[in-house]
Amino acid sequence: MPQFLDAQSADFEAQFQALLSAKREDSPDVDDAVAAIIADVRGRGDQALIDLTAKFDRLTLTADKLRISAAEVDAACAEVSAEDRAALELAAERIRAYHARQMPEDQSWIDDAGASLGWRWTPVSAAGLYVPGGLASYPSSVLMNAIPAKVAGVGRLAMVVPTPDGVLNPLVLLAARIAGVDEIYRVGGAQAIAALAYGTDTIAPVDKITGPGNAYVAAAKRRVFGKVGIDMIAGPSEILVIADADNDPDWIALDLLSQAEHDESAQSILITTDAGFGQAVAAAVDKRLETLERRKIAGASWRDFGAIITVPDLATAVALSDRIAPEHLELCVAEAEALSTQIAHAGAIFIGSWTPEAIGDYIGGPNHVLPTARSARFSSGLSVMDFIKRTTLARMTPEALAAIGPAAARLAQSESLEAHGLSVQARLDRLNRT
Amino acid sequence: MPQFLDAQSADFEAQFQALLSAKREDSPDVDDAVAAIIADVRGRGDQALIDLTAKFDRLTLTADKLRISAAEVDAACAEVSAEDRAALELAAERIRAYHARQMPEDQSWIDDAGASLGWRWTPVSAAGLYVPGGLASYPSSVLMNAIPAKVAGVGRLAMVVPTPDGVLNPLVLLAARIAGVDEIYRVGGAQAIAALAYGTDTIAPVDKITGPGNAYVAAAKRRVFGKVGIDMIAGPSEILVIADADNDPDWIALDLLSQAEHDESAQSILITTDAGFGQAVAAAVDKRLETLERRKIAGASWRDFGAIITVPDLATAVALSDRIAPEHLELCVAEAEALSTQIAHAGAIFIGSWTPEAIGDYIGGPNHVLPTARSARFSSGLSVMDFIKRTTLARMTPEALAAIGPAAARLAQSESLEAHGLSVQARLDRLNRT
Repeated sequence: MPQFLDAQSADFEAQFQALLSAKREDSPDVDDAVAAIIADVRGRGDQALIDLTAKFDRLTLTADKLRISAAEVDAACAEVSAEDRAALELAAERIRAYHARQMPEDQSWIDDAGASLGWRWTPVSAAGLYVPGGLASYPSSVLMNAIPAKVAGVGRLAMVVPTPDGVLNPLVLLAARIAGVDEIYRVGGAQAIAALAYGTDTIAPVDKITGPGNAYVAAAKRRVFGKVGIDMIAGPSEILVIADADNDPDWIALDLLSQAEHDESAQSILITTDAGFGQAVAAAVDKRLETLERRKIAGASWRDFGAIITVPDLATAVALSDRIAPEHLELCVAEAEALSTQIAHAGAIFIGSWTPEAIGDYIGGPNHVLPTARSARFSSGLSVMDFIKRTTLARMTPEALAAIGPAAARLAQSESLEAHGLSVQARLDRLNRT
Repeated sequence: MPQFLDAQSADFEAQFQALLSAKREDSPDVDDAVAAIIADVRGRGDQALIDLTAKFDRLTLTADKLRISAAEVDAACAEVSAEDRAALELAAERIRAYHARQMPEDQSWIDDAGASLGWRWTPVSAAGLYVPGGLASYPSSVLMNAIPAKVAGVGRLAMVVPTPDGVLNPLVLLAARIAGVDEIYRVGGAQAIAALAYGTDTIAPVDKITGPGNAYVAAAKRRVFGKVGIDMIAGPSEILVIADADNDPDWIALDLLSQAEHDESAQSILITTDAGFGQAVAAAVDKRLETLERRKIAGASWRDFGAIITVPDLATAVALSDRIAPEHLELCVAEAEALSTQIAHAGAIFIGSWTPEAIGDYIGGPNHVLPTARSARFSSGLSVMDFIKRTTLARMTPEALAAIGPAAARLAQSESLEAHGLSVQARLDRLNRT
């Protein structure tokens, strides 16, 4: 059973606080092991990758086999059914079209003082994409990470994916090909992150690493951060649905379960203006849990972290939603569009009952890599912006320097940074002499 | 003496690699001490701040004195000279005008399938700004951090600044007032970061923390990251000047020294097409070092990390510059504007001999918080973007879901995420029935 909360009950605030601060993830402390793996890869390069892959993935490689060859990718892609290929291609096309609109423009202008100012965006030269192995090896994640990088103009995109016992995932390789990934290596874990960050003879180093992974991968990303850029460290998935009584309880139940089935630590919350509807959704969830393939995972998530909150009005729902700052927010209410404009903190909003969150996981167009654990208060989902960076530009004329230079010299003096002031003053002196 | 390198010499690559990888910063390991301080502030709140401020800043406070009152700010601001005030106001106005242009626009459109897509930008609700005490307490940094936050629309901006022995810095307080800082607290160190992240009775928690600080502050920011957002952890300052022989060696010497005087770990590099000019700059640096107030710091930086590199042509200069990915890049060459477009990786570019880097530290308009330690390969300077976040939006119509839903259901199936598929299929089934 999930928790049932009533926003008008006396102890609601305490219950809601407890819900907000529930510790859902128990990260094992693997930092020492990861530090040793990184040091090993830095020291021994390819040979460390070969040894660690034999150990963790039960796969014997030689340096020339670290990279998955074009022929192997060809062969794997040929195994994919026409329907799956068409679905991946439609998803890729829609994700590409959405992200293409994110490219910001360079700017330049001349201001009143005569100074030329502006900035220019440039892509990261090389990026690395981590793809988990096994059950969590999702072709959709390959598209969601690789396409923004390629839209941004990243010249070299290297993917790493563990292949336990040597088994390749055809859909993952096809997604990589469709997305334009340039190189694919059959290595995973902290050793793959180390290789991307520091390079080996076979794998050239990259500047930025993105993609999900287990505790080892997350710890390795934290460790190499600074040497390279990384994306966020994702926590377990979350969904918040705000729904009125004019919804099919089964639809809402399935939407809640679509996050719950990811992970026993996932969290699904329903906020509704109708307590009876909340009960109906709870019953629909229970019914679906009888047959769902992943009922063990989804059931545990729903039991331990699920919640149904009854609120007196939608304004209260919005206020609670902003305190949760959900990764995914579904608005299944009559005036969903208008309500969406009142939301201040959410990773992604799915507007109206015809927009199940799962559409956004695959094919809507927006990215499915989104801020978890209330971090939508201060961060955004993955985008083209993660693969570009801004260089600011300034150019003074002698006149512009004459206009604003004295203030700079004054401020430098007030901060006791004499050379700063002199570097301006020496130029001003030349102007004054002529 | 700085290093002299010649890009055409046989051992250049090894020397350049050594320059790139020189370890300039020795961060003391203060992580355990910082963890204890954070735990203390989380446990004891204001009283921990009071005790730690007594210990580290030799200042006895009560909870009602943690915040610097408006009257105190008034009194301190009144001490500032009219010239300093005017300089700060001009700087603020120019920084505000530059950053106002960074605000991105929301987007929404309807695509071919009939899906409404887009995104919306919203500000972080509350931000915290750390300002160091003592010598590194720079009013210009207050402007550079606070103004982007306020331009972004941050509702509550709380500043923390240690005041050792109770001494207030009038220029810092005036800069805070001009920039629109809402609250100022006289606490510093890891305890101030902990208070901003977790809150105390007096200091409400924030969502994002920016601003420079010592090793304790940096370690505390790393530790609270995730709970709140943080800006980059800045390393020692750097400047790269690319200059031809048509420059006054003294101007270039002062530009190099303006970074060297920040910190013994700062790095100043000149790349020039004229070896004789390089020698002239080296002589000019030595001459300035005879009298510079901060000659001890600047001299150590120049001796230990300074370099003058002679190149055969500007194309080589550009290539080396991109490998350095400098925080600050000055282009003092004839066709500086054209050359700037060839640079792929730099935090900020100062174009032409009339644009000393120090202009950008104070008054140019662009931000002076910039990526150090080669991180301009993958990150950008502080901007309005650091204080806003994107919520992606999607709205399907029944027709749009009919068009793209089947592909989503197919992909969900291929990833063995049954509830994902069912949440789409249940809606498609309704359409098929009607």
